[in-house]
Amino acid sequence: MNFPKEVQKLSELFGSLPNVGPKLSNRIALYLSINAKDLAKRMAESIDDMIANTMPCRLCGNISNTELCSICEDDLRDKSQIMVVEDPLDLINIEGSGEFKGIYHVLNGLISPINGIGPEEIRIPELIKRLKEENLKEIVIALNPTIEGEATGLYIKQEILKITPDIKVTRLAKGIPVGGDIEYVSGQTIVDSLRSRVEF
Amino acid sequence: MNFPKEVQKLSELFGSLPNVGPKLSNRIALYLSINAKDLAKRMAESIDDMIANTMPCRLCGNISNTELCSICEDDLRDKSQIMVVEDPLDLINIEGSGEFKGIYHVLNGLISPINGIGPEEIRIPELIKRLKEENLKEIVIALNPTIEGEATGLYIKQEILKITPDIKVTRLAKGIPVGGDIEYVSGQTIVDSLRSRVEF
Repeated sequence: MNFPKEVQKLSELFGSLPNVGPKLSNRIALYLSINAKDLAKRMAESIDDMIANTMPCRLCGNISNTELCSICEDDLRDKSQIMVVEDPLDLINIEGSGEFKGIYHVLNGLISPINGIGPEEIRIPELIKRLKEENLKEIVIALNPTIEGEATGLYIKQEILKITPDIKVTRLAKGIPVGGDIEYVSGQTIVDSLRSRVEF
Repeated sequence: MNFPKEVQKLSELFGSLPNVGPKLSNRIALYLSINAKDLAKRMAESIDDMIANTMPCRLCGNISNTELCSICEDDLRDKSQIMVVEDPLDLINIEGSGEFKGIYHVLNGLISPINGIGPEEIRIPELIKRLKEENLKEIVIALNPTIEGEATGLYIKQEILKITPDIKVTRLAKGIPVGGDIEYVSGQTIVDSLRSRVEF
């Protein structure tokens, strides 16, 4: 005996989400099918709404409702300073600290040869393009202090200096615990590490 | 700075699923919005398909494609023996053991006064109705050996004996670890506990 194919299909799709294993995806698919068709309906509508009305910001790649995100459009932000982050969850936590007044560049990933992710698979070409087109004074590398984060940061630094040798390239201070995750650290940790950023 | 309202809404909906906390639901909503609109589209379609094409079995309450599920429709199953289970995940694991030849009654929950769930909130009235209408010889209680499972089993036993005093009421043997979960035990544990079931 198996679940109906519609429930199995739903469970497979949920199982392909990050951090959702087969037991949890089965439970979610059954929960929606048996106890919560109302919630399921709202979820399908919400997904359609998201697909129709969100897009990556044309400039920084952050998730947005408009062609340019609210940060890139904000006249009060310092457009000569770009912070490079892995994803919008890191960006949100950094914004929460209130310390950074520049704009962002969201990579949507890190270089990871083991997983077949090279510089072209994340938004590094878009960063290079910005270096050529925008009038930039500083690039702040704000990637997780893990092996992949460090390697991605080093690669980006080399590429930047090939194009614009005079630009300042900094990185967040190592106040963030090695192996930790920018998404979870306190606002103060972000403030400290931003203030003590060092030459990269 | 916040995520676009469509992403926030999606995150809220995912956060209302069982075992999905706010960090995971944020991550899922962003993953779908930024990296996987294709997957999101298939997910919304799959949810719509599930809503349109699945229903609870009219008799046992198991999730089904048809008015009667494949087990209730199967002529080779012993229709005089009903096993009472909490949900379809438990049913699937019990079916996997190949030991039980009767049919099921899915409660879709357990009595839990703390959470405001009484006998009328789960499928106990439907079970009482089946006792009156079907020609039954035995009810096997197969609920998790937790406080709520035991209480629900005892309540069901009392209700059964009020209506059909001569029916045999059994329960799975306590081979299942107390505090454990039927969904996860091995097939052999189910075989053992079914063979050594005792008077309830």
